[in-house]
Amino acid sequence: MSALLPEGFRDRLPPHADSAAEIETRVLSVARSYGYERVDPPLAEFADGLATRLKAGALRDAVRFVDPVSQRTLAIRPDLTAQVARVAATRMGHHPRPVRLSYAGSTLRLRAPELSPKRERRQLGCELIGLDSVAAAREVVGVAAEALAAAGAGGLSIDFTLPDLVDTLAAGPLPCAQVDELRARLDAKDAGGVAAIAPAYLPLIEAAGPFDPALAKLRVFDATGVLTSRLDGLQAIAEAVSGLATLTLDPTERHGFEYQSWLGFSLFVAGGPREVGRGGTYTVLREDGAEEPATGFTLYADQLGQATALDRRRLFLPLSTPAEDGARLRREGWVTVAALEPGDTPEAQLCTHVWREGSVEAVS
Amino acid sequence: MSALLPEGFRDRLPPHADSAAEIETRVLSVARSYGYERVDPPLAEFADGLATRLKAGALRDAVRFVDPVSQRTLAIRPDLTAQVARVAATRMGHHPRPVRLSYAGSTLRLRAPELSPKRERRQLGCELIGLDSVAAAREVVGVAAEALAAAGAGGLSIDFTLPDLVDTLAAGPLPCAQVDELRARLDAKDAGGVAAIAPAYLPLIEAAGPFDPALAKLRVFDATGVLTSRLDGLQAIAEAVSGLATLTLDPTERHGFEYQSWLGFSLFVAGGPREVGRGGTYTVLREDGAEEPATGFTLYADQLGQATALDRRRLFLPLSTPAEDGARLRREGWVTVAALEPGDTPEAQLCTHVWREGSVEAVS
Repeated sequence: MSALLPEGFRDRLPPHADSAAEIETRVLSVARSYGYERVDPPLAEFADGLATRLKAGALRDAVRFVDPVSQRTLAIRPDLTAQVARVAATRMGHHPRPVRLSYAGSTLRLRAPELSPKRERRQLGCELIGLDSVAAAREVVGVAAEALAAAGAGGLSIDFTLPDLVDTLAAGPLPCAQVDELRARLDAKDAGGVAAIAPAYLPLIEAAGPFDPALAKLRVFDATGVLTSRLDGLQAIAEAVSGLATLTLDPTERHGFEYQSWLGFSLFVAGGPREVGRGGTYTVLREDGAEEPATGFTLYADQLGQATALDRRRLFLPLSTPAEDGARLRREGWVTVAALEPGDTPEAQLCTHVWREGSVEAVS
Repeated sequence: MSALLPEGFRDRLPPHADSAAEIETRVLSVARSYGYERVDPPLAEFADGLATRLKAGALRDAVRFVDPVSQRTLAIRPDLTAQVARVAATRMGHHPRPVRLSYAGSTLRLRAPELSPKRERRQLGCELIGLDSVAAAREVVGVAAEALAAAGAGGLSIDFTLPDLVDTLAAGPLPCAQVDELRARLDAKDAGGVAAIAPAYLPLIEAAGPFDPALAKLRVFDATGVLTSRLDGLQAIAEAVSGLATLTLDPTERHGFEYQSWLGFSLFVAGGPREVGRGGTYTVLREDGAEEPATGFTLYADQLGQATALDRRRLFLPLSTPAEDGARLRREGWVTVAALEPGDTPEAQLCTHVWREGSVEAVS
């Protein structure tokens, strides 16, 4: 009875919890090597302040409670990036730009998001605040790819999108009176719907798939050259990670990228049905009301759980093994498991090896 | 305005967040080397189930909310050890004993505990479930001491207590009708109060302080020998860590050890006003209603925050530094910070070194 957990919550047991911790350490270690320093915002903060930096409506799914100290409503964070943006804009507002920040932490939701039953999620990532240039995106996409490789995630693929593509075209060479509807039809790959609203946009549906041919189609489609700088930038970003990942392009994909500016990307690994992370360029609201550009990525650590196999060799130390032997073996990298009473056995302690008469023997 | 956080919550900024993460990694790495594998229970679970394993009344200070999915009350954990005990008793109930588990996670309280304004705390530790013997306690106290040393905490001192001492004496050679009141007077070091209730217990007030003389006084006090096995055990545990810490003994200290059985200990580090952790022997409720012995320790990571100074050398890579140079320097252990636009400087990026014409130069 007491073993039951609410839907969307779970215990992570050995060896999965160690494996998940190791993955986080490796991801954040790559981030750190590129100068991303860690910030660690609190689990809860004032709900109204948090709401200003969350996607519209996101607070509805947050756990909220009245704080007996302030008598105000607090919310448990449903997302960490909003807090990192707050830190960058406020307490680190004086720091010269760009600021490179990394983070890892748990998030909680009252209701599970679509496509996933989880209500507690572990989120980690990097944010580069102050720039959304091609150089910034090259770095961020590169760090994401290298971090996933370090975490043991094989078969990485990156799907790029251009979230403001339709707006840019509609405001320029291809005017359209129903932009919202057009975006929805393009997002759904609904050729009939697109043809009914703005047939000039139909080639965009075809300009999706493996990166190079899709980009070539986009360049042909962009007869007026209004997209040239974006496409050049996208190509430069793709070149930076072409050796690390399979690349695809879905230029009109908008779902989940509503808050990204010119660039978005989703990260997938082999064998994973869902994306393991996403990122792109966006804007951060400064305390003075101005906006500043930013680029970042977030990984959903739970999706990476099975990617890294840890060394689980365990060396059993029989009763009365000298303490110095154990200390030396641990220094040599062994996990030692000491017998604490006469009946203890290597098998009961899931040990792969035994320390016997001064040498390591494999358990047969 | 949006920078304000509720009382008892805070942002951890660079370099403190990296430092705190490094401390956790080091503590858990020592635990792992002794065979303690990590478990990671969820932030929230059913409030009634959690309450059965928390100290009486602890749920009052937990953040609770109604789960829209189950329509039952959930609680955010105010403490992690209750969850670890649940995992050991239920999902790992079939595992041969002893089971060695480690954990690290955040806890949340509606109201701050006494002596500390913090409402979110980071808790990490080890639990050895299935044994509360002297051998078990020697291992657990030793792991705690080694973990704190690895985390850079200097000047460790360990204060031991014997939580069931008074009960043992009152049930044996020194009967006392007012045991609860006697314990409270002893805990308060109130000699007058002790004399009024049971003057035979007065020597216990003096048997506190540096470990060896205090233990010697206890041995003299224990004329009937009812405490001999406990005192021998305590001495053996103390010998195991005598080289790693300053040891004290406060045999009647009960505060916060109400749930410990025969042994309790508090951990202090130099310069810290409050304890950085505590531990001892206790019992875990199994699913079949039986109890099993256990031994463990918990560290309050926030109290260790300043103990470890990280290397903050950062190497600035000017614009157009070849990607291979950066990759090689990171492999060599450098944190590299790449210029992403012409105006960027090593100073703005808080860099200590610059990569210039193929060599590392210190920023003057």
